[in-house]
Amino acid sequence: MNVAVNVRSIFDKANFIRDLGIAITGVGEGWCETELQVTERHRQQHGFVHAGVLATMADHTAGGAARSASGTKDVITVEFKINFFRPATGARLRCRAQVLRAGKSIIVAEAEVFSSEKAGEKLVAKLTETCAVIEQQ
Amino acid sequence: MNVAVNVRSIFDKANFIRDLGIAITGVGEGWCETELQVTERHRQQHGFVHAGVLATMADHTAGGAARSASGTKDVITVEFKINFFRPATGARLRCRAQVLRAGKSIIVAEAEVFSSEKAGEKLVAKLTETCAVIEQQ
Amino acid sequence: MNVAVNVRSIFDKANFIRDLGIAITGVGEGWCETELQVTERHRQQHGFVHAGVLATMADHTAGGAARSASGTKDVITVEFKINFFRPATGARLRCRAQVLRAGKSIIVAEAEVFSSEKAGEKLVAKLTETCAVIEQQ
Amino acid sequence: MNVAVNVRSIFDKANFIRDLGIAITGVGEGWCETELQVTERHRQQHGFVHAGVLATMADHTAGGAARSASGTKDVITVEFKINFFRPATGARLRCRAQVLRAGKSIIVAEAEVFSSEKAGEKLVAKLTETCAVIEQQ
Repeated sequence: MNVAVNVRSIFDKANFIRDLGIAITGVGEGWCETELQVTERHRQQHGFVHAGVLATMADHTAGGAARSASGTKDVITVEFKINFFRPATGARLRCRAQVLRAGKSIIVAEAEVFSSEKAGEKLVAKLTETCAVIEQQ
Repeated sequence: MNVAVNVRSIFDKANFIRDLGIAITGVGEGWCETELQVTERHRQQHGFVHAGVLATMADHTAGGAARSASGTKDVITVEFKINFFRPATGARLRCRAQVLRAGKSIIVAEAEVFSSEKAGEKLVAKLTETCAVIEQQ
Repeated sequence: MNVAVNVRSIFDKANFIRDLGIAITGVGEGWCETELQVTERHRQQHGFVHAGVLATMADHTAGGAARSASGTKDVITVEFKINFFRPATGARLRCRAQVLRAGKSIIVAEAEVFSSEKAGEKLVAKLTETCAVIEQQ
Repeated sequence: MNVAVNVRSIFDKANFIRDLGIAITGVGEGWCETELQVTERHRQQHGFVHAGVLATMADHTAGGAARSASGTKDVITVEFKINFFRPATGARLRCRAQVLRAGKSIIVAEAEVFSSEKAGEKLVAKLTETCAVIEQQ
């Protein structure tokens, strides 16, 4: 399936995503899902997962969802906004992104990040992202 | 100077910031400045610095500026929005953050990220961030 | 039901909302719904509904959802972000807002605005909003 | 001067802007300035200027700044984010917008809204906006 190949390639080729340990776990037309096993290096000064880790995961997963809707074209992040709802303290993060609107030149996607807390999986952050559709680099 | 000590501590204690190589280079009342030497691990699929690196740097530097204005209290990121203006391809990033409004319970700061490109230093991203003022953890 | 009374009062007392013609059509714990009959005065230079009308409707409806979750306290908008997906050209707008996270001092809500276009109801904008919980004024 | 003519036309032709009383007071390459005399209809439930009025003014003024940088092309709002710093209680609002980055297909601008309070002019809101460059409608 071409969509999966296209989306997986933006994970395979992104050093920073591999370096952090963010792995794609599912993809389809208009959506993408990822996972991250949290380690000590991902934390901030209070011991929670750093906002930058959550933002990176949400941004790249939203980019994956956008890429699933851009056909033969590529996508690049123009801007995003992310809200943080509660500290992420669990051992595993899961992110699910979906396209809200796929235009010819702009694709908007949103992504939710869940943390596997003791009380079960909790929504810890939600992002909205605008991507530009560009020619393949 | 207490402001500097308080702000530096949120850099020293944040694993993810040290892991990425983001270093504080200046701080005062209402502002904070940081630097990052770009390496291969910071890149995304097109070879540019990943949006997540820029966002992490801008978020933490804005948090530093906010912390410089929170007195004996601590701060935590509630949300941020970041726009990306051009690909960052240079060897060095510099970030400058300043407080826009310091309230008793909420502090808003903005941060600009500059990349040392061949044509000189270029603005590559700008963030606006809302922090909550919290008791020391 | 107290929730409905509390939320309706922030519509009744808001001059600008009455002036624009935005009416509350439903409310419950964690959600709020509104409607607007579009007239010529709501339009921008291309003949579409102005972004400011969509933003006002989404902001106030999200504020209504937040107020439904703040108990005896009041709420005020700290910030919002809104994406516009397609021009709104229909005669009627509908907005649905829901709380994403209700904390003691901060409530985050999102709102979707739909336009009754010829091809049916279309999502024209989506907002994410951060409210501060404050004492009754 | 063509820039002024182009920008003024998006104020003259926008019903909602004229209806609210927002007037353009200055424009140049990359910037735009507006004013609004506050009346009772602009207020929200606490008696402050409604967030939607501030957002409309900031959005349209940022759009004016963007239009000053789009040459023969037109612009339309893709998304914006706005922070509110303090209640606007004064009789007059002033907004100043400037372009942060003008690309071929996307222009990013920011806008600050000031209220003439008793203690002098105060910054009450700041917006960042992404516009798409489009063909003249």
